[in-house]
Amino acid sequence: MASEQILIIGGGPAGLEAARGVADLGYKVVLVEARERLGGTPISANYAALTHGMRDASEVMGEMAAAVTSNPLVNLRPNTRVTGCSGSAGDFRVTLETAGKPDAVEAGAIIVATGFDHFDPGRATQQYGYYQYDDVLTLQDAEAMLKEKRFVKRSNGQVPERVCFIQCVGSRDRHIGNEYCSKVCCGIASKQAIEIRQLLPQCKVFIFYIDMRMYGYWENEIYWPAQEKYKVNYIKGVISEITMKGDRLMIRGEDTTMNRPMEVPMDIVILSVGMEPSQGTKEIAKVLGLAQNKYGFIEVPQASLDTVATSVPGIFVAGAAAGPKDLDDTMGMAGAAAMKAAGFVRRKVHAVA
Amino acid sequence: MASEQILIIGGGPAGLEAARGVADLGYKVVLVEARERLGGTPISANYAALTHGMRDASEVMGEMAAAVTSNPLVNLRPNTRVTGCSGSAGDFRVTLETAGKPDAVEAGAIIVATGFDHFDPGRATQQYGYYQYDDVLTLQDAEAMLKEKRFVKRSNGQVPERVCFIQCVGSRDRHIGNEYCSKVCCGIASKQAIEIRQLLPQCKVFIFYIDMRMYGYWENEIYWPAQEKYKVNYIKGVISEITMKGDRLMIRGEDTTMNRPMEVPMDIVILSVGMEPSQGTKEIAKVLGLAQNKYGFIEVPQASLDTVATSVPGIFVAGAAAGPKDLDDTMGMAGAAAMKAAGFVRRKVHAVA
Repeated sequence: MASEQILIIGGGPAGLEAARGVADLGYKVVLVEARERLGGTPISANYAALTHGMRDASEVMGEMAAAVTSNPLVNLRPNTRVTGCSGSAGDFRVTLETAGKPDAVEAGAIIVATGFDHFDPGRATQQYGYYQYDDVLTLQDAEAMLKEKRFVKRSNGQVPERVCFIQCVGSRDRHIGNEYCSKVCCGIASKQAIEIRQLLPQCKVFIFYIDMRMYGYWENEIYWPAQEKYKVNYIKGVISEITMKGDRLMIRGEDTTMNRPMEVPMDIVILSVGMEPSQGTKEIAKVLGLAQNKYGFIEVPQASLDTVATSVPGIFVAGAAAGPKDLDDTMGMAGAAAMKAAGFVRRKVHAVA
Repeated sequence: MASEQILIIGGGPAGLEAARGVADLGYKVVLVEARERLGGTPISANYAALTHGMRDASEVMGEMAAAVTSNPLVNLRPNTRVTGCSGSAGDFRVTLETAGKPDAVEAGAIIVATGFDHFDPGRATQQYGYYQYDDVLTLQDAEAMLKEKRFVKRSNGQVPERVCFIQCVGSRDRHIGNEYCSKVCCGIASKQAIEIRQLLPQCKVFIFYIDMRMYGYWENEIYWPAQEKYKVNYIKGVISEITMKGDRLMIRGEDTTMNRPMEVPMDIVILSVGMEPSQGTKEIAKVLGLAQNKYGFIEVPQASLDTVATSVPGIFVAGAAAGPKDLDDTMGMAGAAAMKAAGFVRRKVHAVA
């Protein structure tokens, strides 16, 4: 007997949007979230403003969570993991575990929305001294400080005079195995650069990059204002080493536009770390038997431009579980996955063509 | 009385995917296409291979069109334009015109999928001599030649020895009013560069760029192979002028990595033209009363990360009608728009919460 219920795994932007969509279409949802709280990485990593529109992340994610928690068709399961799955398309039997207690649910279709982890700059790029120097941050460290509207040196609490971003940490790097581009780091670094300049108008901000991938709207909405209104300094260059000189960081590298070596002092260095598949994404791929690509993201076979089908019929993927995505990508995929999962269940249950 | 029928305007990738989605959810569709044939720009502009996967465009679009034309819930209206609209969300009354003959349909919701036009390089970048020199092409000219597997100089039918792409023609350019990045041109130029090298292994291929925006999967699926396997030469540089020298084109500009002027001969120059709103997009915005952004694309207010809502309730947008999009973006938006339009109609008709 086919089930009309749809299981959605992950309560971040993709999972929340998919849950809202499926419920709007009149189908029952079981929404599983490993954490206590909904909202995914924007909440757990204390994001400040989200693009487009630079709205407060807590506010936006709060609206999205409210749309789901208030919907009688959504059965919300926080603090829960998926530990087993049997059956097949139209008739999955899934084992959940909440605080050590197992439970079984039926699902006609499944949407995986288990997201990404930020690249850990201690793993393979130790030359940047992330675990050695207090004032070397990652994008998410900076994001949390910007959310608090208090952007100071962690080493001594002083307001920085010079801040720089180093792009492509953990991305476009065969040495560490991540040849892909993480897609959003150029935009997020530029967004943070604007926020720093708004908060600290005296502070000089630099972004060292290979290519500024401000694709589409990022170009006119973020990149032009960053340069013209906020005077962010973009320098095409490669940073090879960070050391200390007195109480300041010293970055060494090459300005590849001017073709000359650089050695410049900075108060804070922010590493623009990329996306990797989350632990939850890697686990769920095994539990559900989903093919993964060489980086560990959920594989999308891409038949006839289908962006959300996985290798298993009846199981769909949305958001960064399938590879680096921006929020626009994530919302689109979540809507598409909701539509396809509901359409799939409808065909199975009603046996329509 | 609310209508359960959904009107979809445009039969390209976005409109076809939205139509398939809406019908899969069990709602009736009226699919309006201005041309005789479905498939949108990939068909009308004779695209060769589509990314991901480099599958033949005719084959992929044929599959998508077949899924729609064979569906009894889809009322297909080729050679048809939308000329009027009254009523409001849930109860639109829309005037169609087929071969001069008007007709009225009802719609509970509308999805606009009217796409983009390629930037016309004769309008404002006449320095590149597109209308002057036979061997200066646009991306879509090159695409049509690659589809025929015959890539020769239009001037004399000879096989080219040196081909180059000039990026950002009609994009990232305040002078012509298009500050935005057109998002896909870096990827499409790189894809074509690979196809040229496959077809003509003796031909040298160059790409002159500002930033190579090979975001996300384009990096590892296209950019690395283009450089390593296909030996495409990427040169950060600005081309200011194209002239003739004998029967060859001569391009002049500056290599901004080496900081030196360049003057190099080419047999074929391909202008990587960007996206502008299509005529159909500008017309439909007026007919339906939709807000447009400063570039003429359909404005998306982006409330709570909603990527497909327009300024008018009950009217949604998918694909490049809303700004430069790649095929992944387009498919995601189409799925999301199908889901939202169907959910919207369901709430109106069944008066559910």
